[in-house]
Amino acid sequence: MKKNTFLALLLFNGSLIFAQTNEEQTIKKIYNSALTNSKCYSWLDHLSNQIGGRLSGSANAEKAVQYTKAQLETLGLDRVYLQEVMVPKWVRGEKETAYIQDGKNKTSVAICALGGSVATPKNGLTAEVVEVHSIEELAILGDKLKGKIVFYNRPMEPENIETFISYGGCVDQRYAGAAAASKFGAVGTIVRSVNLRLDDFPHTGAQSYDGIPKSQYIPTAAISTNGAELLSKALTSNPKLKFHFKMSCQQMDDVLSYNVIGEIKGSEHPENIMVVGGHLDSWDLADGSHDDGAGVVQSMEVINIFKNLGYKPKNTLRVVLFMNEENGGRGGQKYEELAQANNEKHIFALESDSGGFSPRGFSLETDQANFNQILSWKDLFEPYLVHSFTKGHSGSDIAPLTSKPLVKAGLKPDSQRYFDYHHAANDTFDAINKRELELGAATMASLMYLIDQKGIVK
Amino acid sequence: MKKNTFLALLLFNGSLIFAQTNEEQTIKKIYNSALTNSKCYSWLDHLSNQIGGRLSGSANAEKAVQYTKAQLETLGLDRVYLQEVMVPKWVRGEKETAYIQDGKNKTSVAICALGGSVATPKNGLTAEVVEVHSIEELAILGDKLKGKIVFYNRPMEPENIETFISYGGCVDQRYAGAAAASKFGAVGTIVRSVNLRLDDFPHTGAQSYDGIPKSQYIPTAAISTNGAELLSKALTSNPKLKFHFKMSCQQMDDVLSYNVIGEIKGSEHPENIMVVGGHLDSWDLADGSHDDGAGVVQSMEVINIFKNLGYKPKNTLRVVLFMNEENGGRGGQKYEELAQANNEKHIFALESDSGGFSPRGFSLETDQANFNQILSWKDLFEPYLVHSFTKGHSGSDIAPLTSKPLVKAGLKPDSQRYFDYHHAANDTFDAINKRELELGAATMASLMYLIDQKGIVK
Repeated sequence: MKKNTFLALLLFNGSLIFAQTNEEQTIKKIYNSALTNSKCYSWLDHLSNQIGGRLSGSANAEKAVQYTKAQLETLGLDRVYLQEVMVPKWVRGEKETAYIQDGKNKTSVAICALGGSVATPKNGLTAEVVEVHSIEELAILGDKLKGKIVFYNRPMEPENIETFISYGGCVDQRYAGAAAASKFGAVGTIVRSVNLRLDDFPHTGAQSYDGIPKSQYIPTAAISTNGAELLSKALTSNPKLKFHFKMSCQQMDDVLSYNVIGEIKGSEHPENIMVVGGHLDSWDLADGSHDDGAGVVQSMEVINIFKNLGYKPKNTLRVVLFMNEENGGRGGQKYEELAQANNEKHIFALESDSGGFSPRGFSLETDQANFNQILSWKDLFEPYLVHSFTKGHSGSDIAPLTSKPLVKAGLKPDSQRYFDYHHAANDTFDAINKRELELGAATMASLMYLIDQKGIVK
Repeated sequence: MKKNTFLALLLFNGSLIFAQTNEEQTIKKIYNSALTNSKCYSWLDHLSNQIGGRLSGSANAEKAVQYTKAQLETLGLDRVYLQEVMVPKWVRGEKETAYIQDGKNKTSVAICALGGSVATPKNGLTAEVVEVHSIEELAILGDKLKGKIVFYNRPMEPENIETFISYGGCVDQRYAGAAAASKFGAVGTIVRSVNLRLDDFPHTGAQSYDGIPKSQYIPTAAISTNGAELLSKALTSNPKLKFHFKMSCQQMDDVLSYNVIGEIKGSEHPENIMVVGGHLDSWDLADGSHDDGAGVVQSMEVINIFKNLGYKPKNTLRVVLFMNEENGGRGGQKYEELAQANNEKHIFALESDSGGFSPRGFSLETDQANFNQILSWKDLFEPYLVHSFTKGHSGSDIAPLTSKPLVKAGLKPDSQRYFDYHHAANDTFDAINKRELELGAATMASLMYLIDQKGIVK
């Protein structure tokens, strides 16, 4: 190698190393701040244990709006405000009951209404059961479904390492199963809980009657995985057994609710907006600590970390706590609607809505150039065991955003335990590890910081 | 590029891709087997819920020996046998009690005897307390420690991403604190539990009176982190307060116990032994599901996976369930002693003793050439989110092994939750996630398979 080339390379590498060292140092400070001086765990304690489940339109959801707004106001931001949004209101009513009736034997099983379901008749619904493993099977069975309860029993596939892939592989039964079965004259549907584990928790979640007239709405419930195994086994012995379930849920009129927003104005490019957020609503069976209390307090913590470090973002940083992700997505839609109306320019949006577990990386929705830029930062994350940068879905609340160019990202925590808790009565504060929650917030803040410093590729 | 060079590269890459594809396929089968057809979770269920805590020398430890031996015998191995080892026997006695006595006020706090501690006098021990943050501080305090209880209160550092580093940074207080304080005339020691979380669980663990005569042994206990915070605060208000604790633990004579060993003879190099293991004993406060029931059943599962796949190792594969890791390490020592006596040649040893959480990688004790070889397999682990290959401690039970050349490895699971449970009453089966446990076993089996195929660098 020639001497000059060597010197030039040395200088180049020298400045490269120096530049990276600054970033390394800031990221180290971000993680230290999260692990020693964060508020996210105590915020979540309040959200979960003082407020609880926050289904859209409920009194608790309103309390969560007021609490998070008040907490953001303590952080010395440039602006904290609410964004009005009309949300659907569905109420569960009395605790659901169900049993398998095999001759004179009645065996109770754990169920819960799926969100948006209609009630059963007052004294419950009793019918014979047809077990299927997919919506496609219905067409083959045709008339045999008339007057029956359709029991969707396709389990999550255990082979996938990323459990969200297994979720995607069977959630259609829950979301679209009732409408599909109703078309064949079924009187109700029972859906195996979307849970990899065998346990006694029924897991609720959104379902939709889209495409059928209101008169054909049929009640639909989730059954625990243990209950599903039991029912399937019982059906093998006696295909003529009956299933009984009773639910008093109902859909009310839409009500006014809010997205909660806090903002630090950008010091150099205030017109460029970077969003970080999670969703404030949760299902009603538990306090929603993982889904998505974690994402809410981690998003708030990103701002808290920057404040603690005295870091002034070049671009406008906005934390958005979206309302109604679970059963409508109205908060995300309203946010985009107003962003368009106000001619806002978003360059980056980051959502945390996959639980408060150890952060493993990011799922990125972006073009190749921006994906490559983020990949080039991989080494900066390695000391924090954050290693997985993949293309994929970012987040439901930021999905409506249409600014261009825009990089969207979703935090990817370890996903093995997520569906043990997802939408079930055990998604509670005790299932959260403080450090894992904090590490997630630091990981989000680090990506936010890098995007703020480097900008996106246009 | 010249055409010939291009063709040569294509061929080279072509064969490389083909070779890797075979390995990729086998590793995929290994993970599929673990996630769909494993026995480790039900083995652990039995060890934890049917047997329970397995302190060396206890009846439960003996039951665990018999149970795991019987289970290994069902796997169709070439040989299953026990290896005699004399182990220390320490018994806790009645549940410990303790309180802070501040004037007339008594406040109960949660403590537990450290393993190997002597008892307090029958009616307990009451004395004034001196709080310190390191063993080194004792020399400065000197005579002020006479007749006092030394309270070690240095917490684990939250800043480290790998929590084992924080463990290493303060476990000296627990292990060597009593002997050190005794030299200055202290009458007992109370040690802040080695736990990153604030909670009410005291965490036991080994301590040693090495270096002081038996007449100077003083009782030593762990206090929960909440208890430690409370005591420290109370001492600030009243440095003259007294601490009372009562323990009836005692050291018994050594008793006969066993390492449990199962073996598949190597098809090509039976003289080369590859060991995979965990430790069968546990502390007595809980059922030891993470420490180290997980490592035991994962090691057994490695063999089960190979049997399920019909994979016949070239080298001899031995699963070793070591006795007495927690308070003596006698099983590991005995294993090495007999290996030397029998002129055995070990090429690889892998231990799982860091909990049953999502696997993140391996900690490798080996020379640079073998470290590099293992690093070259990193891409094979990436689809399973196993990404961290570092040099470091492998495992306590395989530490005595001296065969050369020898590669030692420790499974590195996610460490954030480990010290929430470590040696405490909450290290129970419900803290284990089936998939995380299985993924750990598959990760171990995959490394074992690659070492078996490729050999080690000599």
